Amino acid sequence: MASSFGETLRVSVFGESHGTAIGAVADGLPAGETVDEAILLDFMQRRQGGKNELSTARKEPDVPRFLSGLTDGRTNGFPLCIEIENTNTRSGDYKNLADIPRPSHADYTAYVKWNGQADLRGGGHFSGRLTAPLCAVGGVALQILARRGIAVGAHLYSVGQTEDTPFPMLPDPGLFDKIAAKKFPVINDEAGAAMQREILAAREALDSVGGTVECVITGLPAGLGDPMFDGIENRMARALFGIPAVKGLEFGGGFALSAMRGSRANDPFTVDENGVITTETNHSGGVQGGITNGMPLRFRVGFKPTPSIAQMQRSVSISEKINAALEIRGRHDPCIVQRAVPVVEAVAALVTLDVLLSDGRFGELGTVAV
Amino acid sequence: MASSFGETLRVSVFGESHGTAIGAVADGLPAGETVDEAILLDFMQRRQGGKNELSTARKEPDVPRFLSGLTDGRTNGFPLCIEIENTNTRSGDYKNLADIPRPSHADYTAYVKWNGQADLRGGGHFSGRLTAPLCAVGGVALQILARRGIAVGAHLYSVGQTEDTPFPMLPDPGLFDKIAAKKFPVINDEAGAAMQREILAAREALDSVGGTVECVITGLPAGLGDPMFDGIENRMARALFGIPAVKGLEFGGGFALSAMRGSRANDPFTVDENGVITTETNHSGGVQGGITNGMPLRFRVGFKPTPSIAQMQRSVSISEKINAALEIRGRHDPCIVQRAVPVVEAVAALVTLDVLLSDGRFGELGTVAV
Amino acid sequence: MASSFGETLRVSVFGESHGTAIGAVADGLPAGETVDEAILLDFMQRRQGGKNELSTARKEPDVPRFLSGLTDGRTNGFPLCIEIENTNTRSGDYKNLADIPRPSHADYTAYVKWNGQADLRGGGHFSGRLTAPLCAVGGVALQILARRGIAVGAHLYSVGQTEDTPFPMLPDPGLFDKIAAKKFPVINDEAGAAMQREILAAREALDSVGGTVECVITGLPAGLGDPMFDGIENRMARALFGIPAVKGLEFGGGFALSAMRGSRANDPFTVDENGVITTETNHSGGVQGGITNGMPLRFRVGFKPTPSIAQMQRSVSISEKINAALEIRGRHDPCIVQRAVPVVEAVAALVTLDVLLSDGRFGELGTVAV
Amino acid sequence: MASSFGETLRVSVFGESHGTAIGAVADGLPAGETVDEAILLDFMQRRQGGKNELSTARKEPDVPRFLSGLTDGRTNGFPLCIEIENTNTRSGDYKNLADIPRPSHADYTAYVKWNGQADLRGGGHFSGRLTAPLCAVGGVALQILARRGIAVGAHLYSVGQTEDTPFPMLPDPGLFDKIAAKKFPVINDEAGAAMQREILAAREALDSVGGTVECVITGLPAGLGDPMFDGIENRMARALFGIPAVKGLEFGGGFALSAMRGSRANDPFTVDENGVITTETNHSGGVQGGITNGMPLRFRVGFKPTPSIAQMQRSVSISEKINAALEIRGRHDPCIVQRAVPVVEAVAALVTLDVLLSDGRFGELGTVAV
Repeated sequence: MASSFGETLRVSVFGESHGTAIGAVADGLPAGETVDEAILLDFMQRRQGGKNELSTARKEPDVPRFLSGLTDGRTNGFPLCIEIENTNTRSGDYKNLADIPRPSHADYTAYVKWNGQADLRGGGHFSGRLTAPLCAVGGVALQILARRGIAVGAHLYSVGQTEDTPFPMLPDPGLFDKIAAKKFPVINDEAGAAMQREILAAREALDSVGGTVECVITGLPAGLGDPMFDGIENRMARALFGIPAVKGLEFGGGFALSAMRGSRANDPFTVDENGVITTETNHSGGVQGGITNGMPLRFRVGFKPTPSIAQMQRSVSISEKINAALEIRGRHDPCIVQRAVPVVEAVAALVTLDVLLSDGRFGELGTVAV
Repeated sequence: MASSFGETLRVSVFGESHGTAIGAVADGLPAGETVDEAILLDFMQRRQGGKNELSTARKEPDVPRFLSGLTDGRTNGFPLCIEIENTNTRSGDYKNLADIPRPSHADYTAYVKWNGQADLRGGGHFSGRLTAPLCAVGGVALQILARRGIAVGAHLYSVGQTEDTPFPMLPDPGLFDKIAAKKFPVINDEAGAAMQREILAAREALDSVGGTVECVITGLPAGLGDPMFDGIENRMARALFGIPAVKGLEFGGGFALSAMRGSRANDPFTVDENGVITTETNHSGGVQGGITNGMPLRFRVGFKPTPSIAQMQRSVSISEKINAALEIRGRHDPCIVQRAVPVVEAVAALVTLDVLLSDGRFGELGTVAV
Repeated sequence: MASSFGETLRVSVFGESHGTAIGAVADGLPAGETVDEAILLDFMQRRQGGKNELSTARKEPDVPRFLSGLTDGRTNGFPLCIEIENTNTRSGDYKNLADIPRPSHADYTAYVKWNGQADLRGGGHFSGRLTAPLCAVGGVALQILARRGIAVGAHLYSVGQTEDTPFPMLPDPGLFDKIAAKKFPVINDEAGAAMQREILAAREALDSVGGTVECVITGLPAGLGDPMFDGIENRMARALFGIPAVKGLEFGGGFALSAMRGSRANDPFTVDENGVITTETNHSGGVQGGITNGMPLRFRVGFKPTPSIAQMQRSVSISEKINAALEIRGRHDPCIVQRAVPVVEAVAALVTLDVLLSDGRFGELGTVAV
Repeated sequence: MASSFGETLRVSVFGESHGTAIGAVADGLPAGETVDEAILLDFMQRRQGGKNELSTARKEPDVPRFLSGLTDGRTNGFPLCIEIENTNTRSGDYKNLADIPRPSHADYTAYVKWNGQADLRGGGHFSGRLTAPLCAVGGVALQILARRGIAVGAHLYSVGQTEDTPFPMLPDPGLFDKIAAKKFPVINDEAGAAMQREILAAREALDSVGGTVECVITGLPAGLGDPMFDGIENRMARALFGIPAVKGLEFGGGFALSAMRGSRANDPFTVDENGVITTETNHSGGVQGGITNGMPLRFRVGFKPTPSIAQMQRSVSISEKINAALEIRGRHDPCIVQRAVPVVEAVAALVTLDVLLSDGRFGELGTVAV
């Protein structure tokens, strides 16, 4: 077992880049929830490649097909299976990878683990393409959460050395919509333009570049999550490290807190005229002891640069046990982080819904018009 | 369910700071493994407080008592239960916490979650004291791994703004022993002295300070772990975020990779004269696609500053819904990160052993003299 | 989460009787295993309806389509997804079920659980049709086990009051093949003829009849399974009660042992000239303390009669809260137990493979020609 | 992992018969629940041996000690750990078992599984003594359920060939109390007297005898449990087969349904004047499709005879690979089924509470005076 996560809501992802189809099963969704397919397609479109010179040329329509779990446009309580056919595959591009592993890809580790039996064309099951079904089921979760006043938003926080403006402490969901509508998902478009220049420069250098995504979840009730190993941070962490290329994760102030004193890092409590308890700052990222405190849940995910680059690289021939140069042709994104923004939202939404369901708190959330 | 982790080897932690006892059950350990109690006590001693002015004055002997799972000094295949009695508790110190939550502690979130029914004296089940049983069962795992040539080592990477020398790319287990024998677990003792000054300065300011721990695991076979959500990174992440005060985690180059280009971040493969495939650098931290590549597994954990500080802080009275000043007396560490070093090792050892057992790879490891 | 089982090999079933498709994902299969599709179709054919007057008239081709996990006819280490399209649905037959629940069906319990939001046309996700994907992935497991000398066989042990000859203590896999090749899966064809008469008599009376299935697994190594709650009996039980209409399960002598004395029920050990330890009898069904002893694993599963019968039945109108008569038209099997025989084999094979993988014992099994 | 069960409420059992202590951790209990220790001791007393000539002479006080999870007599939201010290052990009795396995015990299977490293004195972790901590945490669950109007009752349904009167379709909790207060837990005391004669006759013949336990849970809401593999039947089955010596389990009519026609086996629905929907009969045992229907949950558990008998038995010497006679001295119950009655109740209560918590239905249950 490997490609699933969640306790009460369990998501299983299947498929290989160059197989028949990719997809996901989400078991444990609440019943009677409307799925707006147009909104879902819009959401999925955000991670799609092929739009411009920043992304790979591969163009798959990526239309999700609901095999089960949906009746007359509403969840029916049973496992939701979404399938996406693979239509545009040119596996010839990857032929010599079988023996010469791409540096910092899973080629070599998968080779060892499965004794050469894994199907790694196009990255196989490790391909970034597998994030499409994650977005499909995550998009359903986002709609269910939105109806309860819970909003999940993310933006490209940095590309290489260039940083966007961080989210404000109490972001308005309207800001999330605004970012989602942009071609390049940043808050500050000037920073965005600089990031795009950084990506294009990397591309011209036959190189790639990494980046980070900041994500915030608003509208969460306090008291969600369990202590120690089943906290909302633990569950987010387990799922988020499943997104390809993620190498770092921090909640709230994160690593910056490690360099601070307690008097600055602590979030003082305060109560407003309605008796609502909040904190003056949110260095904790909305979580203390693994449990939400009612402030926005906030975390940042670090992605390494796309390991597929067009430059000649040093590798080895596994069969011949000799050093070997590798030149990858195929189609590659010089940066995948802008496309990972909705993927982070999707995973965050699925984990959030799972924690709400595990805690038995989902039913008590009122619904709001969306 | 909350206070347990692991799949094949399942660790369950129990106890509250001021209850009768704390402890842990480890179910799924291999049978016939010698447990050297002297070595175990030495290991546990490393996380113990009360040693000097850097740590809290609370002195608990913290002698583990084996209730089950051990026969004639060897694991017997059945669940290992280790209990540590609580002997030195002064709960009066924490009396007013019931109503006025300590900033950035779990007091408030636990209050909301359990409607005021949680026993939070001394931090309750959230107390750093609960890391003692983690070290007890983790210490057993460390001995089992050492016998298979797998070494787990960690050091204090930073305190506040001061940084230690990082681990070399291929650290020798002898280095781990050297660090473990030090009063202050750093590689570079000059950096260590500066860190201690930073801790004492915080203490004098009635304040606290955060830090980071770097951990490396050597001797792991390649091919360990599963793709997507069950990789060794995912499983480490789930468990490591269960250590109190952890707010960040990065593998290999981590967040620094996000600022790099692929040509620099990628780890070129190379093969030596014996046909052994390694990588020239280890920015991946020994993991690609969630699966080990045979290089040392390397990660860094960020701890926020101890939230308990002696300064007056702003908080609220939960019952009266008014703002309230809070002055915490009790006993507090100005920095807990030096004590967290063996805790990180313990958790890393438990997760490593679990992944080895899940993969059915444990049996194939030869034993070495230790 | 509901429709999945297994620890290391995790099977997730999806689909509703009258939805787009039904299917299953099997995550954790060993890589490099050949899947013979002709053999698989033969196996699946055994549970198919529409063959004769004993079964429902519904004829679905039930051809499995591999969406993932298979490359060039071999498992590739990644999740195997099998989909079966629903082509022959006449949901009008079930229209009035929405309000008047069929006695001893899940209509009412599903109505309550999902507040009327479940899609129960044709039984929805509770339909016996969902056993088709179970057979598809179970058929793959059977092929993998057969290659290791592990055979799973079952027969119709009883229908109503009529009983077949039980399996011998040490059945030959050839016997399993012989039964599998029969139109009516019994050992003793005379008993089989009597059973068929009992089924037809029930049908003529607009009624249905229950039965039992006996299953045996040969070739298992001793020492498989874990104590207490993770024994092979526990894991079998969890999965087998997931087959629709199962209401009883007994291992070895089962309930009959409860009426015996220990001196008769105990299985004496004996050792043969090759030093192989076996037991003289197998009242334990091959399991002691949840762990296999090397004798055939043997169990019996009890199925209640098909709850859909053509007779008028007493029910209620949920909406009007009044008693209401119900006459079910549609297509129904007067007995489903003969069709459940391969389903029991499929589930038994999946659990067996999962236990082998969890115990890290799979790799040590040699392969045999099949 | 082996000795734990449950999803939201996770119970882990530890200890060996002749180790330092036995115990259990229950993680996930609701907070604020009063634990009446006198009632708990009374409940635990019901499974205690040493009372009379029907049971073993071993007398352990079996007083549970709460190590954690309880503050001022109420659950505090954190893992509840209960420990019972082992005080009366005479392991010499079992010395020769190490090499000559007792027929139908786990001696041999444990030997193979752990290569002779398991501690099997007194049955080790497989001993019936491990049911004491199950009763301790199960007794806590029973108190929590009782407060919500959910009652769990069981009686000795049969010993050897002698049967008690079955529970009525709608048993009153008062009946459960009456049975619990009896020295011999039956409904019909005449049948009970006959059973006791059967047990004593077995004892005089240096033999043992098996039996069955019937259990009923009243007051459950309809709609509890999940389809397929996560139904309340599946979860009960997984846990109940963890009680030593259980070899059979049937829900409602169970195996008898397999011999019936549908027209007799189906439970017709009916609605009363208050609009409450029930069934006229309860052959389904309160469950359809894995989900409760609001009728009492009813099941029967079959226990094999105590495998330890004083007669000479045929076994083998594992080391010498020769046949060997075995005479077990030690202390043994000629029948353990009467002592298993509260164990079945304990496990049933824990599973029921777990399912209620998993479904998020616990909070909606009102409390009643008990």
